[in-house]
Amino acid sequence: MSTPSHRFITTAEALKEEHKGRTNHWLCHAEVCGAKDIQICRATLPAGEGHGFHTHPELEEVIYVLEGEVEQWVEREHRVLKPGEVAHIPKGVVHATFNPTAKDAVILAVLSPAVFTGPFAVDVSDEEPWRSLRG
Amino acid sequence: MSTPSHRFITTAEALKEEHKGRTNHWLCHAEVCGAKDIQICRATLPAGEGHGFHTHPELEEVIYVLEGEVEQWVEREHRVLKPGEVAHIPKGVVHATFNPTAKDAVILAVLSPAVFTGPFAVDVSDEEPWRSLRG
Repeated sequence: MSTPSHRFITTAEALKEEHKGRTNHWLCHAEVCGAKDIQICRATLPAGEGHGFHTHPELEEVIYVLEGEVEQWVEREHRVLKPGEVAHIPKGVVHATFNPTAKDAVILAVLSPAVFTGPFAVDVSDEEPWRSLRG
Repeated sequence: MSTPSHRFITTAEALKEEHKGRTNHWLCHAEVCGAKDIQICRATLPAGEGHGFHTHPELEEVIYVLEGEVEQWVEREHRVLKPGEVAHIPKGVVHATFNPTAKDAVILAVLSPAVFTGPFAVDVSDEEPWRSLRG
């Protein structure tokens, strides 16, 4: 496989992914720019939607809020994060991001590495204690 | 050394660094949250200032523009990047970021890994061809 050589990536070059009626943009990804260690996805969470409880068994993650507010969970702790605020999620740690507001929220999800072998994510939203955590 | 346990990081918890009259914020860093693979610094470049040509011998980097515009170089190529646009800089590759506009530009610098042994950066701005590249 030849390595893509893009060094500058705009929305046009990003890898697109539809999620709950919005388009997420992978601005840094192995398939976009040959990244080895860093993945960056700009994701929009519509009002009332979110990314349920899950883990990334092989990836560390940072969530950076760009617009709006999110209810961010890391294990049993949660916080409302505003633009410019961050959550750090060590490899394999259960986490979730919800948008409890009335308007879209936009986040950057930064993940490392960009090349890995196992599943990207494991959904644990149907398992306790995560299923009952938001009450 | 005990590992810091902060999972949620705001400007208040970030590691601060003064640079050319502005405060940069390390929102994800080994010393802030025990990060192993991801570092994130929100950096402000005043009008006419920048980060001259350098390498990170052990780190891959992504620049994500938050506000304003920057003149981003990756080796001999450059592009004006606007908010939401990205540059990907493989490990060891020479790069630079300048703000040629009349107002502050704000970028996120994402680097991986967060734990490494050698120097963070090597300045090559006095060496050719980098010294003469901007003409």
